[in-house]
Amino acid sequence: MRGAARLGRLLTPHGEVETPVFMPVGTVASVKGVSQDILEDLGVQILLGNTYHLYLRPGVEQVRKLGGLHKFMAWPRAILTDSGGFQVFSLNELRKVTEDGVTFRSHLNGSSHVFTPESAMAAQIGLGADIIMAFDECTEHPADRTRVQQSMELTLRWAARSKKYFEDHKHEVPWANVPSAEAEQQVPRSARNDKSLEGATQSLFGIVQGGMDLALRKESAERTIEIGFPGYAIGGLSVGEARTLTREVVESTIQHLPADKPRYLMGVGTPEEIVEYANLGIDMMDCVLPTRAARHGLLFTSEGKISIKQARYITDEGPLDPKCGCKVCSRYSRAYLRHLYASNEVLAQVLNTVHNLTYYLDLMRTVRHSIALG
Amino acid sequence: MRGAARLGRLLTPHGEVETPVFMPVGTVASVKGVSQDILEDLGVQILLGNTYHLYLRPGVEQVRKLGGLHKFMAWPRAILTDSGGFQVFSLNELRKVTEDGVTFRSHLNGSSHVFTPESAMAAQIGLGADIIMAFDECTEHPADRTRVQQSMELTLRWAARSKKYFEDHKHEVPWANVPSAEAEQQVPRSARNDKSLEGATQSLFGIVQGGMDLALRKESAERTIEIGFPGYAIGGLSVGEARTLTREVVESTIQHLPADKPRYLMGVGTPEEIVEYANLGIDMMDCVLPTRAARHGLLFTSEGKISIKQARYITDEGPLDPKCGCKVCSRYSRAYLRHLYASNEVLAQVLNTVHNLTYYLDLMRTVRHSIALG
Repeated sequence: MRGAARLGRLLTPHGEVETPVFMPVGTVASVKGVSQDILEDLGVQILLGNTYHLYLRPGVEQVRKLGGLHKFMAWPRAILTDSGGFQVFSLNELRKVTEDGVTFRSHLNGSSHVFTPESAMAAQIGLGADIIMAFDECTEHPADRTRVQQSMELTLRWAARSKKYFEDHKHEVPWANVPSAEAEQQVPRSARNDKSLEGATQSLFGIVQGGMDLALRKESAERTIEIGFPGYAIGGLSVGEARTLTREVVESTIQHLPADKPRYLMGVGTPEEIVEYANLGIDMMDCVLPTRAARHGLLFTSEGKISIKQARYITDEGPLDPKCGCKVCSRYSRAYLRHLYASNEVLAQVLNTVHNLTYYLDLMRTVRHSIALG
Repeated sequence: MRGAARLGRLLTPHGEVETPVFMPVGTVASVKGVSQDILEDLGVQILLGNTYHLYLRPGVEQVRKLGGLHKFMAWPRAILTDSGGFQVFSLNELRKVTEDGVTFRSHLNGSSHVFTPESAMAAQIGLGADIIMAFDECTEHPADRTRVQQSMELTLRWAARSKKYFEDHKHEVPWANVPSAEAEQQVPRSARNDKSLEGATQSLFGIVQGGMDLALRKESAERTIEIGFPGYAIGGLSVGEARTLTREVVESTIQHLPADKPRYLMGVGTPEEIVEYANLGIDMMDCVLPTRAARHGLLFTSEGKISIKQARYITDEGPLDPKCGCKVCSRYSRAYLRHLYASNEVLAQVLNTVHNLTYYLDLMRTVRHSIALG
């Protein structure tokens, strides 16, 4: 399948993104513990923000008033926001889904809120990310075929409503009225010369659902493409299914996605998985794994996964990963990193996150290099 | 009193320190939340480590085996460790003081430990800071004259024992056997050409006690000088007394300290205080205030102190301090810093600490510049 891998470039209103790309997660307008200048130094070209979290705190209106997410968090490069659908699904046991949308309770204070395709679009337009996502229902797993089909149909209806609202309101993006010369030039389009997008505004991607049913996935892909988006995501995976099943669904679904549009696999994955899926022809991925694992002292290295809290590292003077050139590996010993973690020092989280992100970004650079070399 | 201020330079085995200097506190081998490369960028020339904390975790033997504190924490510049006496005093309600030393319980797990002048020196030699401190008793406040005098006498006897142990064992410093060409040249001495120190090893400073009694402070200073140290600290202040009293004691004690040796005022203070004491002729100061306040969202600016958690900053697009050139003020808005703090994001602590340290270091640069200009 290596032949399916492809190099690309997303030209967004906030700069270029080389694909395949791994997008670090900056849930509430911060990649936990890592300052924006360090992310720039790491070569991060696009960050992911969570609409659900930003909607609750600091609030969309607050971010919009301050010029949008880029300006608010002082991040001049590209940003993608998810639709909030996945967080409503994963953080809310008491959510209530109707044709109109989802009623849910804030995980912060229990207050009640509603997301509809329209309000999720309004939120994402207000936040002003470069790439925003249609509002979808993430189907639970396991689910029977009838349930999966009904859920897929709902997501399709919501996709059409998302697109309609977006088309009617996309001019309201906080930075729409202040187009820079640069923004005018950097029209979002895929490297495959997709000309369907014009103007320096946001791009709305559609999301393919359909559970673990390959026929429904095909149908979802075809009918989402009929609605028409400048990019397509595969959602509803990494929800507890076996990894082999995830791969089977991705591999099958990808066949039904247009070759000339970006393909985004949501919420994946381990280092092995991101390489595997890039090789299958996925262009974009995101996952909390490198940043969350770092906070728990789990570090990815060329020699495998390391749990830095282990006593075996107490006197280990070597670098975390001898093959890594990041500022953590080139300066500190495993013994010091172990000490920071054992002492609950905040610097442990900072350094561990910088390393894990470096590992993921280097991995994707290597993948892109391999693809370039054929 | 402005005429008493003086410029100086400490030449330590790990580089030069321009004085008057403010030393950031890196309690357990980390300035909480700030990586060593950022401290270098901020122009930090000397850090303070806490012997009490390092002794408990990761342990002196552990640090010694790994080459000493500099190598352990990957900090090539100067380090000073305190003697542990102040932490035993401030963190241990159940300590027991005898002629021999202090028995105390770990604040981490309640285990029982003893510090004597000899063991505190052994710990500081094992940690291998450039400047280490004699083991002293920090006299509580208030205390009657008899108690203050007895405590002062104990500190004097401990000072003599500290010096004796240090002289007998200073060759055991972890980096003693690997003198670099650089280390050979950078003999610790004050800018006033103090020649009493020779060789690339640690320097042991004496500590003046005597409570709030000016006559006892004078006696403590004179008798500590008789024992003979390459530098002198004023200890036992900032223990709950009024600020005017602190100043009175410092101003009085300083008269009895030799002009040709570094003078270190321990545990002070606010921005106003460090300027004031530098102007009185103090060369070195340390305090947790800038770093601890940062963690509580209290930020020092040219426009006064700011509590960034306040709702008034929710929509404040301006920089934290318009007159500050630090990487926080030049990139982020008060609104963003307020959001990070309100959301309990770790980045709040990182950025706030970087700013507050910049504020303190800039202040001392300004003081040195003013002194240079007379």
